[in-house]
Amino acid sequence: MTPLSSTARTRLGRYPERSSGDRSVLYEILDDGMICHLGVTMNGSPRVLPTGYGRLNDTLYVHGSTGASSLMAGPSQDICVTVTHLDGIVLARSLFHHSINYRSAVIYGTPRLVTDDEKMTGLRVITEQLAPGQWDVARQPTRKELAAVSVLALPLDEASVKIRQGPPSDDDEDYALDVWAGVLPVHQTYGTPSPDPALRPDIPVPGHIARRVTS
Amino acid sequence: MTPLSSTARTRLGRYPERSSGDRSVLYEILDDGMICHLGVTMNGSPRVLPTGYGRLNDTLYVHGSTGASSLMAGPSQDICVTVTHLDGIVLARSLFHHSINYRSAVIYGTPRLVTDDEKMTGLRVITEQLAPGQWDVARQPTRKELAAVSVLALPLDEASVKIRQGPPSDDDEDYALDVWAGVLPVHQTYGTPSPDPALRPDIPVPGHIARRVTS
Repeated sequence: MTPLSSTARTRLGRYPERSSGDRSVLYEILDDGMICHLGVTMNGSPRVLPTGYGRLNDTLYVHGSTGASSLMAGPSQDICVTVTHLDGIVLARSLFHHSINYRSAVIYGTPRLVTDDEKMTGLRVITEQLAPGQWDVARQPTRKELAAVSVLALPLDEASVKIRQGPPSDDDEDYALDVWAGVLPVHQTYGTPSPDPALRPDIPVPGHIARRVTS
Repeated sequence: MTPLSSTARTRLGRYPERSSGDRSVLYEILDDGMICHLGVTMNGSPRVLPTGYGRLNDTLYVHGSTGASSLMAGPSQDICVTVTHLDGIVLARSLFHHSINYRSAVIYGTPRLVTDDEKMTGLRVITEQLAPGQWDVARQPTRKELAAVSVLALPLDEASVKIRQGPPSDDDEDYALDVWAGVLPVHQTYGTPSPDPALRPDIPVPGHIARRVTS
């Protein structure tokens, strides 16, 4: 695998030791997420909106509607896609060293609006990111439904990852303080599936959904 | 409370029924979060980075370092701050109607770089958002530490909120399909606090941290 690029945009100004040039780390962060924050420039000012995404090899697919002005602004101009996992709250002895444990990926580039077979591929990848197993069981999109969504493709060419893990780093003289220090872990968990009130009563929760529930 | 503004930027193009003009809904979404995604424009292209924030009345405080180029670009130019909660995965009978249940707030504006007493207030609000109770127990910032962080203030003047809740909305003819439909709830939970290996062994986990653990 090629290492991650280093460009003026992806070079980290602060805490460069928290970065990784390892492409497999980028893959892990992206594959672990369900939504991204998509940044576009609209009339000179930034707009950041949450949306669905998925990854296939070195292409990131981002979901939108043809009515979403943020995505209309996308093709032929730069976008930024950020995926963040909050893993813990870092409680230090000093307020200054309070922090978060996190993993984030930031991808820059000019997206392509995809069509035809690749649009279907992109939708599959985005759906499977959010709801693995559903592509094979739910009704496939009609031509009209396909026309009502847009899918952007962004190459994973210009990307950076940043990770903070582990305990707080306090100043030497603060370790003697009478203050608890450590990490409060943060997890994303899944509750019991809630059936649609209109669900036919003879349809049980399928295994691929039941298995995601956090025990 | 004044209702939320409606401007060209905050008017929702898609699914306007998911918006709310209720300022108390904006407060709830912001008060429920721990990190935001901050969007800035850098050399004409968007940049989206996760960071800490907090709210005091109608001011949003956003945390940064004076070394963070994204924030250096902030004052005197527009930024966008987005806070998103992923509440559930909406599993429909058709792929097209798959969705997420979420609450998001998007705030636009030109921030002020705050100083002196307001900087301390902003840091307190940001710290308490992430780690309530810590401001009163951890060592206060020194003058040098204060100089090493920057705090931006953004008025909650131009903001929109968007919420999707509830079961999937399938097409009439799909309700007869042999496909399970409903919502897989997504929660953010807190694990057992992990003490710093360097923690003095006589210091127990304080109540304000222990109480956050999800039982």
